Amino acid sequence: MGELATLFAPERVAVIGATDREGSVGRAITSNLLADFAGDVVAVNPTKESVLGLDCVDEVSEAVPVDAAVVVVPPDLVLDVLRDAGDAGITNVVVITAGFGETGSEGAARERELQEIAAEYDMNVVGPNSLGIINTTTGLNATFAPQNATPGNMSFLSQSGAFVTAVLDWAADRSVGFKDVVSLGNKAVLDESDFVREWGEDPDTDVILGYIEDVTDGREFIRTAREVAQETPIVLVKSGRTEAGATAAASHTGALAGSEQAYETGLAQAGVVRVTTVEELFDFAGILAGQPLPDDENVAIVTNAGGPGVMATDAVGDSDLSLASFTDATLDRLVESLPEEANVYNPVDVIGDADIDRFERGIDAVLADENVDSVVVLSCPTATIDFDDLADATVRLQAEHGKPVAVTLMGGESTRSAQDRLSEAGIPAYFDPARAVESLDALWDYAEIRRREFAEPTTFDVDRERARDVLESAVRRDTNRLGVEAMELLDAYGIPTPAGRIVEDPQEARRVAEDLGERVVMKLVSPDILHKSDIGGVEVGVPVPAVKDTYEDLVARARNYQPDAEVLGVQVQEQLDVDDGVETIVGVNRDPQFGPLLMFGLGGIFVEVLEDTSFRVAPIGERDAREMVDEIDAVPLLRGARGREPVDEGAVVETIQRLSQLVTDFPAILELDVNPLVATGEGVSAVDLRLTIDQEQL
Amino acid sequence: MGELATLFAPERVAVIGATDREGSVGRAITSNLLADFAGDVVAVNPTKESVLGLDCVDEVSEAVPVDAAVVVVPPDLVLDVLRDAGDAGITNVVVITAGFGETGSEGAARERELQEIAAEYDMNVVGPNSLGIINTTTGLNATFAPQNATPGNMSFLSQSGAFVTAVLDWAADRSVGFKDVVSLGNKAVLDESDFVREWGEDPDTDVILGYIEDVTDGREFIRTAREVAQETPIVLVKSGRTEAGATAAASHTGALAGSEQAYETGLAQAGVVRVTTVEELFDFAGILAGQPLPDDENVAIVTNAGGPGVMATDAVGDSDLSLASFTDATLDRLVESLPEEANVYNPVDVIGDADIDRFERGIDAVLADENVDSVVVLSCPTATIDFDDLADATVRLQAEHGKPVAVTLMGGESTRSAQDRLSEAGIPAYFDPARAVESLDALWDYAEIRRREFAEPTTFDVDRERARDVLESAVRRDTNRLGVEAMELLDAYGIPTPAGRIVEDPQEARRVAEDLGERVVMKLVSPDILHKSDIGGVEVGVPVPAVKDTYEDLVARARNYQPDAEVLGVQVQEQLDVDDGVETIVGVNRDPQFGPLLMFGLGGIFVEVLEDTSFRVAPIGERDAREMVDEIDAVPLLRGARGREPVDEGAVVETIQRLSQLVTDFPAILELDVNPLVATGEGVSAVDLRLTIDQEQL
Repeated sequence: MGELATLFAPERVAVIGATDREGSVGRAITSNLLADFAGDVVAVNPTKESVLGLDCVDEVSEAVPVDAAVVVVPPDLVLDVLRDAGDAGITNVVVITAGFGETGSEGAARERELQEIAAEYDMNVVGPNSLGIINTTTGLNATFAPQNATPGNMSFLSQSGAFVTAVLDWAADRSVGFKDVVSLGNKAVLDESDFVREWGEDPDTDVILGYIEDVTDGREFIRTAREVAQETPIVLVKSGRTEAGATAAASHTGALAGSEQAYETGLAQAGVVRVTTVEELFDFAGILAGQPLPDDENVAIVTNAGGPGVMATDAVGDSDLSLASFTDATLDRLVESLPEEANVYNPVDVIGDADIDRFERGIDAVLADENVDSVVVLSCPTATIDFDDLADATVRLQAEHGKPVAVTLMGGESTRSAQDRLSEAGIPAYFDPARAVESLDALWDYAEIRRREFAEPTTFDVDRERARDVLESAVRRDTNRLGVEAMELLDAYGIPTPAGRIVEDPQEARRVAEDLGERVVMKLVSPDILHKSDIGGVEVGVPVPAVKDTYEDLVARARNYQPDAEVLGVQVQEQLDVDDGVETIVGVNRDPQFGPLLMFGLGGIFVEVLEDTSFRVAPIGERDAREMVDEIDAVPLLRGARGREPVDEGAVVETIQRLSQLVTDFPAILELDVNPLVATGEGVSAVDLRLTIDQEQL
Repeated sequence: MGELATLFAPERVAVIGATDREGSVGRAITSNLLADFAGDVVAVNPTKESVLGLDCVDEVSEAVPVDAAVVVVPPDLVLDVLRDAGDAGITNVVVITAGFGETGSEGAARERELQEIAAEYDMNVVGPNSLGIINTTTGLNATFAPQNATPGNMSFLSQSGAFVTAVLDWAADRSVGFKDVVSLGNKAVLDESDFVREWGEDPDTDVILGYIEDVTDGREFIRTAREVAQETPIVLVKSGRTEAGATAAASHTGALAGSEQAYETGLAQAGVVRVTTVEELFDFAGILAGQPLPDDENVAIVTNAGGPGVMATDAVGDSDLSLASFTDATLDRLVESLPEEANVYNPVDVIGDADIDRFERGIDAVLADENVDSVVVLSCPTATIDFDDLADATVRLQAEHGKPVAVTLMGGESTRSAQDRLSEAGIPAYFDPARAVESLDALWDYAEIRRREFAEPTTFDVDRERARDVLESAVRRDTNRLGVEAMELLDAYGIPTPAGRIVEDPQEARRVAEDLGERVVMKLVSPDILHKSDIGGVEVGVPVPAVKDTYEDLVARARNYQPDAEVLGVQVQEQLDVDDGVETIVGVNRDPQFGPLLMFGLGGIFVEVLEDTSFRVAPIGERDAREMVDEIDAVPLLRGARGREPVDEGAVVETIQRLSQLVTDFPAILELDVNPLVATGEGVSAVDLRLTIDQEQL
């Protein structure tokens, strides 16, 4: 068990601010605690003699020893109460009281002070502005929700208190049970990472599920969740996905969330099964809690109705699952046990007049097939099938074969008791065939997450000091923007750049050009002019004799365009034969929650118009870098589509990793774009560079 | 009322093959008919005196006059019975009996004969292999389903009998009611188009919904559904969407369905609201049956819980709806009626301690706002809100303002009676906020379908005879494939082609080239060589003096590559300056169900690698052609992205329409590709052409 074990399973709890005033939160908390808790409850309230039959003490110090305190005093008393609790040696506190960061500057100041107190006393604080916590093992219900949770093997965190209330109400008449529940509130101290870590160490939590609106520390979350997800699935709704939703979330929690792109990437790297609706949240958590994981992606469908069987098959087509191909032995078994009109191929149709024996033989045959990893049992109401019998047979066969099963019972009231039987055995049953398939798909997604080995990023041998010098040159010039004058940064990190140099006069330009070939590329170097090509600041294919004049032209154009622009010189660069090459882009943007977000795509229209891009949170290893290349739709262009020469994809993958190392080594780099990184059959070359830094972080 | 009015509402029905044998379909049909039918039932069975209390007659002729007959005799008797029925003047027949097209060649022959009989007697035949039909107005239940339908304003067709059984069972304990239900069976005579047409004329059917696996006649369906959908929404599941699903469907119905691409396109052009899951089918049909259509896309959310409000807002972001911006008057009203901590902007948060009055004021204010077209009311369980009160208030306010409303009640058992109250008033209520938004989105989708005016395709002035000559030249050459030698086809339909000619000797090549400029394009013309460029059969930029030699080279390469290939000559073509142009592709493929399917995309990687394409079933008018261009992701490339000159988009749109006319005029054209159609700022030019024809259809 983890650090928070005592928070969830205390032996003695103090309610600070306990009261019996009708309709008050303090009363709700106290009476919920009194209802089922196996431990002791002590009420703290200097203005009362007793509350709901409990004798009151005046101060926290009189209540000790207690393992946890629940705070429901008015907001202006919370900080004093916390200090008292700290002085009394209490380290687990749930702050129900609202009126902190969510309410404006006074509340925000109060919340900062709360954080300081928690740090001083090394205190685990839930909230403030929390609905409370529940632990069904001890019967602890330290919330003011009208409904308690029933025991189960899922633990649930929520950044919305109302969502907890809703889920408890909804779960009450379903067989959805919880181990622990926590309403995170404002997450001033304990956040999602802390509870994920705790439940990862809790043998009684088989699935972690939750609703969040932001992640407090993205990189910490990735580290924690990635490890936990190896053992315990994590299923999350992260709301504020869309622009409208993000605005609504910001006004709701006051937190400014990072980009959806970063969340999508970060949560995936954290090994989270991310869902978008409440239905998916409970469908996926439920099957993960109840069924074993499949060994592979091959699903079999056994149905007594052709049409719904086709719908289930369509759902397989929409998913990451594949329709299993049966072995000959299975086909023989099915031919033997089914009538001639039946379909023995997947989806198996046992036909509308199937009785339970025939249905059962069909399910047994496919579950026994080594090519089948999971099974959907699908039944419409017929005169010959009793849903209860089918449920019992399915439970027995699932247990016997140990493969995951999901059921579709296409009826109303007539399916209820069968659903209950199945759900007691951890087998989900739905009306809609698609939901059964989607649930099995979620199992498979998680099986893949678990299978994914996390490789430490490769550390390349780089010249970090030289890179630091380049970045510091920007500080010396008092600018936050760097361009081609910083190409040495790439050299220092082993990323190939075209031969060439920045020169400061026409004669030198000519001398450099002579060493580079018959024709060269010349670019104006000025941190103040962002779009060089728009003002004619780039000349391609300049013959050596014309280099001096071109130098003058480029500088003149800069002066003309922006008289006060700082011109550092002109870059004279080797002219690459890009006809054989493909222009790619590698970019980095620093996300407030997750840190440096790497982007890869093909140059030109592909990134700008088609948004054909892939992302990862740095640092990444080779597998992730390779996947970034793999994930873009236009990847065939790198691999020889339309008669091109395939490019050296390994060099692209290595460049992404080296850039990942660079931006991880230097948090001062806020944005960085290598555009284009030209890839050919021989390797890559970073032709242009632009970056923005935060001088304070150097 | 339509032609099938008597089928659904007969006064007297004969059951041919009525029986009381336990467990038989004949008994189920007879007893279902006897249960609720307002009219008379007559049993036909020569081996029985009476069935379930009905006196039997021996033959159909003794049963007349009857308005409809239900046939449950064994398969080998069906055809005789049908003839008897026809002779007796019966024109409406439901054939329950299976053993026709779904069972092999004997059955298929029987089905063809059934079709002949139906044609001979001008008989409306449902089935064969149908579960039957239901009409709740007359209480007619001519099915063998265990559950009858409850009355309502939706009519339901299904190509799967089991799906009907499932839906009836499921609907029984929900307030989902039907007007007519039909199990289509094998659709030997009556198909989906017939029922859509019928229900389009039925004032008691407000929504048509259904499950289909194929469409018998795609173009007829588009014509019928497009008209019906102007008044009555049509919501359909078309299964077999995915490759796996299509294979399963083919094995289920025996029908070979056309491509999913054609269905997606055709059903959209037919004005169908297409759904993929059973949940969507009933969610969308339900709200369409119960709520008015919104005037525009702006939705307001009123919630007592921030987090779930964000989830609803995300769902709006995922949909075609927009979050409404309130007028100042509304904001003032909300500020006045809500506490300070409330959020008066959309999503409106009345806060967890809201009572019914406050909630009601919030809902009323947004419903009254002229900028709001639809509303989501969202409530979590709190101590201060009673769901029944909220339901009553919502029903009253919805009726008062006449705008569509969907409700989310986030609880379990505690929401039941409120759900019933809402659903009686036609207002849907869900647990999941996303479903409420998706349902309103479906209303808006349908509102847009209804708003869409169907414009007759423009008829261009073309030279149809000349086009026919070109196609017939293929017949003369006994080939089904035509290439650049058929470019005149495009000329005849007013589609610009580069200047040039096909020549048959080097001298002529030279003469033609001299008129075309300094350099020309030369292409081998051979119907037998498909990929000319692969064998060096295309030379670009040939200087006039080199034309004669190039002619010889091209012909030599053809001989070398394929000695028996027919070489029609060499095309000498004006060399276009394509640097300023964008290569596009217009293609046509004939779909078995829907006929010619037009495709548009950009040349090269865009169609081949990125599959960035758009489709329409021909014939189409200007709006559809314009939308085809608009729908491709890379369309900015046509509009001047990345510093290019915008192309003459009107010329592209006109070319698509002219090709639509061409393939509609000549059903003999099975496939046609104009690739590339080069578009520049000045217009378009069809540089290459390939087509396949069916000689028999000429």
